[in-house]
Amino acid sequence: MSFIKEDETLDDLQLKGIQVIQKKDAFRFGIDAVLLANFANIKKKHKVMDFCTGTGIIPFIIAGKTECNDIKGIEIQEEFVDMANRTVEFNNLSDRINFYCRDLKDIDFLKSIDKVDVVTVNPPYKLQGSGIININDKNAIARHEILCNLEDVIVASKTVLKDNGRLYMIHRPDRLCDIFCIMRKYKIEPKRVKMIHPTYNKAPNIVLIEGQNFGGSFLKWDEPLYVYELDGSYTKEIDKIYGRGE
Amino acid sequence: MSFIKEDETLDDLQLKGIQVIQKKDAFRFGIDAVLLANFANIKKKHKVMDFCTGTGIIPFIIAGKTECNDIKGIEIQEEFVDMANRTVEFNNLSDRINFYCRDLKDIDFLKSIDKVDVVTVNPPYKLQGSGIININDKNAIARHEILCNLEDVIVASKTVLKDNGRLYMIHRPDRLCDIFCIMRKYKIEPKRVKMIHPTYNKAPNIVLIEGQNFGGSFLKWDEPLYVYELDGSYTKEIDKIYGRGE
Repeated sequence: MSFIKEDETLDDLQLKGIQVIQKKDAFRFGIDAVLLANFANIKKKHKVMDFCTGTGIIPFIIAGKTECNDIKGIEIQEEFVDMANRTVEFNNLSDRINFYCRDLKDIDFLKSIDKVDVVTVNPPYKLQGSGIININDKNAIARHEILCNLEDVIVASKTVLKDNGRLYMIHRPDRLCDIFCIMRKYKIEPKRVKMIHPTYNKAPNIVLIEGQNFGGSFLKWDEPLYVYELDGSYTKEIDKIYGRGE
Repeated sequence: MSFIKEDETLDDLQLKGIQVIQKKDAFRFGIDAVLLANFANIKKKHKVMDFCTGTGIIPFIIAGKTECNDIKGIEIQEEFVDMANRTVEFNNLSDRINFYCRDLKDIDFLKSIDKVDVVTVNPPYKLQGSGIININDKNAIARHEILCNLEDVIVASKTVLKDNGRLYMIHRPDRLCDIFCIMRKYKIEPKRVKMIHPTYNKAPNIVLIEGQNFGGSFLKWDEPLYVYELDGSYTKEIDKIYGRGE
């Protein structure tokens, strides 16, 4: 098939028949994208912006799970945007999803587009300087704060959000103090947190945060989510998020 | 017994025979004090300060659980300090524990005493203005931010802590964003968090935070602690903290 390059696969999202183009051996979507798309509260009329969209997995899950038809994704790496655009074409989603190959630090560009109700973002997790990395490696750019850091992501979100619009972020719990402090600095108030634990007796290793642009201060904690039972099988809650066994 | 007033009881802490004086019908110690004293890492040589000490329950638990012999408690309400002092006398702990009836906002007083390695604090949880309260009610003062707020507590901690000294606080998860931001403001870096949940499938309702004065930024999350099994019995972890069933 001409849509797909030799080092790529076409994978079924198991959501309304949507199939996404991914690299065979690199940066394939994982649980983070599914958790974030599930955490975000997105209505039909919402305009949505996904930063650090990569191959567009979060926009595609949102398109599959909701009736929202104004979803934008921004990604700095051209190769990923090219894959995302071919996925749009293959699934006939060009009336609902648009991708832009841009740097999210390009504030003038962000100011030129319509304000949105919802921002989603699965940013690079790791602090620059943590571990040995190849800064030309596409996966390293997606995972480490090489081309953008947490503050850049929050500034970009602030720039595009409507007043009272919502920011949904997935990150690592060890950065939660940074996240809270930087969100407050830009008056995006943390409103809801959900912790994801590998099992019920382990520390959380993923955190979901909902912030509200100019929101008042009240922070709600959701029930935690456990990924695995102690026997290594998925929990019922995870099966439900993946649409299995219902 | 002349130590005890008519409206008071003498309760066994179940720790090295220590018995504490409490009111029969008000502000009796609960799980918070036990959790906080258990969370704090206190060595024999440490100097310890407990703010908002009330009837001194946290100093007494620390005295029972550790060999630490320089424990101070500060409390603004005279009636509680009087009870705490009588508990000291009754248990012959005057060489290890001292209480001061002071306002923790009295920075000049705090500067006049030796710096400490460890601060513990179980502050008033509730924001001023949340709910109808009687500001002359001793229990209201212990629970609502009437005479001191979160920032006052952190400023007081900053004032008495040695460089790299540790602050251990127990609070409500809905205030965690405030706690992180105010701790950072005063360069007491949040280093460790432990969430307490009523049961494993409920949102956390208590949070324990360890901060380090002038600490570097890395935030570790402990495994969560669940208080009850689904059948309403205490978990093994809680039994262990209370020294039961070992």
